[in-house]
Amino acid sequence: MKFKVKLLGLESGGKPIVTLSRDDSEELGIKSSGRIRIDFNGKKLTAIVNVVTKAVPKGIIGVFNEVKNYLDLKEGSIVEVDVAKFPKSLQYIKNRLKGRQLTDEEIYEIVKDTVEGNLSEIEIASFITALNTFGLNLYEAASLSNAMVKTGEKLNLNKKIVVDKHSVGGAVGDKTTLLLVPIVAAAGYTIPKTSSRAITSAAGTADKAEVLMPVDLDVDEIRNVVEKTNGCISWGGALKLAPADDIFVQVEYPLSIDPMMLPSIMAKKKAVGATHVVIDIPTGRGTKVKTIGDANLLAKDFIELGKKLNMETRCAITYGEQPIGYCVGPALEAKEALEVLMRTKNVPDLIDKVTDIAAILFDMVGKHNGKQLAMEILKSGKAEEKMRQIIMEQGGNHDVKPDDIFIGEFGLDITSDKSGYFLWIDNNKLIDLARAAGSPKDKGAGVKIYKKVGDGVKKNDRLFTVYAEKSRKLNRVRKVLEEEIIFGVGERMEMLIQEVREKPLPKKAFILER
Amino acid sequence: MKFKVKLLGLESGGKPIVTLSRDDSEELGIKSSGRIRIDFNGKKLTAIVNVVTKAVPKGIIGVFNEVKNYLDLKEGSIVEVDVAKFPKSLQYIKNRLKGRQLTDEEIYEIVKDTVEGNLSEIEIASFITALNTFGLNLYEAASLSNAMVKTGEKLNLNKKIVVDKHSVGGAVGDKTTLLLVPIVAAAGYTIPKTSSRAITSAAGTADKAEVLMPVDLDVDEIRNVVEKTNGCISWGGALKLAPADDIFVQVEYPLSIDPMMLPSIMAKKKAVGATHVVIDIPTGRGTKVKTIGDANLLAKDFIELGKKLNMETRCAITYGEQPIGYCVGPALEAKEALEVLMRTKNVPDLIDKVTDIAAILFDMVGKHNGKQLAMEILKSGKAEEKMRQIIMEQGGNHDVKPDDIFIGEFGLDITSDKSGYFLWIDNNKLIDLARAAGSPKDKGAGVKIYKKVGDGVKKNDRLFTVYAEKSRKLNRVRKVLEEEIIFGVGERMEMLIQEVREKPLPKKAFILER
Repeated sequence: MKFKVKLLGLESGGKPIVTLSRDDSEELGIKSSGRIRIDFNGKKLTAIVNVVTKAVPKGIIGVFNEVKNYLDLKEGSIVEVDVAKFPKSLQYIKNRLKGRQLTDEEIYEIVKDTVEGNLSEIEIASFITALNTFGLNLYEAASLSNAMVKTGEKLNLNKKIVVDKHSVGGAVGDKTTLLLVPIVAAAGYTIPKTSSRAITSAAGTADKAEVLMPVDLDVDEIRNVVEKTNGCISWGGALKLAPADDIFVQVEYPLSIDPMMLPSIMAKKKAVGATHVVIDIPTGRGTKVKTIGDANLLAKDFIELGKKLNMETRCAITYGEQPIGYCVGPALEAKEALEVLMRTKNVPDLIDKVTDIAAILFDMVGKHNGKQLAMEILKSGKAEEKMRQIIMEQGGNHDVKPDDIFIGEFGLDITSDKSGYFLWIDNNKLIDLARAAGSPKDKGAGVKIYKKVGDGVKKNDRLFTVYAEKSRKLNRVRKVLEEEIIFGVGERMEMLIQEVREKPLPKKAFILER
Repeated sequence: MKFKVKLLGLESGGKPIVTLSRDDSEELGIKSSGRIRIDFNGKKLTAIVNVVTKAVPKGIIGVFNEVKNYLDLKEGSIVEVDVAKFPKSLQYIKNRLKGRQLTDEEIYEIVKDTVEGNLSEIEIASFITALNTFGLNLYEAASLSNAMVKTGEKLNLNKKIVVDKHSVGGAVGDKTTLLLVPIVAAAGYTIPKTSSRAITSAAGTADKAEVLMPVDLDVDEIRNVVEKTNGCISWGGALKLAPADDIFVQVEYPLSIDPMMLPSIMAKKKAVGATHVVIDIPTGRGTKVKTIGDANLLAKDFIELGKKLNMETRCAITYGEQPIGYCVGPALEAKEALEVLMRTKNVPDLIDKVTDIAAILFDMVGKHNGKQLAMEILKSGKAEEKMRQIIMEQGGNHDVKPDDIFIGEFGLDITSDKSGYFLWIDNNKLIDLARAAGSPKDKGAGVKIYKKVGDGVKKNDRLFTVYAEKSRKLNRVRKVLEEEIIFGVGERMEMLIQEVREKPLPKKAFILER
């Protein structure tokens, strides 16, 4: 049947939705939520139908923006519509639900149909749940990575060696990338770093970098920046490097499951052409990976998957039980990174972590004494110089000074009501605090930290300052402070952690950053 | 924030969807597919946001019909909108994903939030997939049944004994209910039968009954009919007996999984106040339950679940490898049932099945020699009389004659191209044939069958006639006939079933009828 297009100007958040009149949908034998196949100038798309009950003329198909953009439709375009069959990939998903392994081709079909909108949220959610329950083997993980690369854009740099780094997330205040990229690039290695924005954290690397420079680069712009500077720090979401992952993440997030973590991370590394990859696995209470044993198992999987994808991979298991450095929140972290690059601030844990990871990368490409080399690049100012070059090429102000960075003007100090030692800090609740203050949307919002675990504390010592761009958000911060215990100060660890009486509702935070 | 309602006149197929301008959604901190809480006159609803990118005034919330109906909104109504928190039940679902058992209260919360639209399709799909993978234990099944009953309407008949029957589906051409209800009601027992429409079959019992009388009865109408006649045959979907199931089915159907089968069926029996229940489990190739061993396991679960729900339950494992009777399709089956009730047609397998199931029900309530009793009620015309009474009370023509029933006027005969015996018939492909002809939507479409398994066949003997209301649908039938082997005629069974070379794509039909 032929239909005339009406542009609705509505966004569904990724799903291809169209509207049809009741008459037309009955004629097609389609109910609300049913699927149709739209054909326009040879381009095909499967879309989900919403039935219109208002008196609307027959023969009109209303299209959401997702459909308009995919098919390049205009008001009044004539499209051919037919009932969509269940896609073949749905049969593969059903087989996976029964615990069967999938072949390369089957996984490719599933990923392709995910990207093309041929699978519904129900079907994708079921697939991801099944993967989560049965577990992925490494063959499937490799197939998934390859399929995600194949269905997205690729960065072709024509370099023999391309290094890259990724953190599985969970370390609060981790601005390692903002230092690592200029150090590695200054050493002459190519590092086309793409990063994500925050999903569950207070600030993603892309959010932090954006304080210093534009990060919405397309593939050509990245190539251009990297050719000039050896490195870049761009937002992966602006590219379509592994677009299936964007859809999988939307399903994983509400469910707090993350079976796609390995294949997604490695797909994105593969898509930028990485040959040598370091995966940072922050470990400990308050991070994603709780024990060193678990971290080792995960590391083994990354290394094996790397082999299958033809990328040399090593892992750095790092300490994540307290924030890295003294700042949490996009602008505060960008400022701290800039100050370290400018050697006006000494942040020992951050510098230690960056130089260790740089050393692993250097070692992989045959350069030894890497920690020393990284330290020299940082101390000599070469890293700062490289960073300013990257900022300039990405279109930022290469002359930026720490004081140019806007920090929220509303502050709230948190002081200690007793003396002793700073014993522990709850990473997840610290994130709650920063998010209540406005992070990551308000870039100037965040938390400054004055004490590290083990530091001595006197009564009334200032422990944190929370910054917000809007004063009303400090009220939300006060509410979090009333409801949550964020840190512990005392002479000794209190031994009773929690008393459980009846049906506790675990409020575990879920770390989804990749 | 306050918003002014704009009625969009759109249906989403059950999901509560609203539209907000980009400005407003950014102010709320909501992305497309995010959830908001709407408050109107004390009624609250969680809805999914679609962001509007066209220039629309701020402060306007566009609402789909589902939202309008639930909150009783009018054009211009002022509603209070806030960001929705993740519902508590989502945490329970996450726990189930980890393999944890759920408590009564937790399951109730999940079912309630499902019915109220607080859970997204992603979350429901994940829950159902997890139940399917881990399996349900009987305690969870009972909690689910109870929660489904509690969140829906109930039929209160004030009777000590209420009998009921249900088939798990998969028997083609099964018009047992159309005979069983009048037989049991004529014997003086209360049987308020609710049935479903076809989902994957050629005709649901409600579709068949609707040929003879209206089946869209509400709870009061059912009570009225049952008080006058002892029985009824109504469409369960018109009631809201266990509305959660309608949502679960939408998720189960595309995935071809059915973990909710037991709790859903038993919830619907409980909601009509059944005290004694017979579950028919058609068994064999081409049905849902393939082996007698599996049927016994399923029967055990039904009986145990019945106990937990305080309903005495027995199961009838019945032969389902070929159609029951000689007709498939709503009108053809209604006609066949009417002819058997009128004793103008002898259909031995159908009569045998009906009287056996009636006998089990009679035995449960203390009446022995039940098969004989059922046969007498049928042969004496009392069953016909009772059926006509039910037809009249439900608003149909109680004088209806078989010839009054409209059968599609376009027919296609399928003959045998060789002599031998009718060896087998593929139930699922027979359904494909009936559905290609227009069943269940075109009530007059269907298949008449002339041979049963074991019957002798001569070359050119007519085996089937396919009926359609529209001649073009016979072309679809011809296509199915070209592509599929539906039956086997020969002197002996051919021993090679299938040669498998490479990656076969199993096209197993999924039977979802409850």
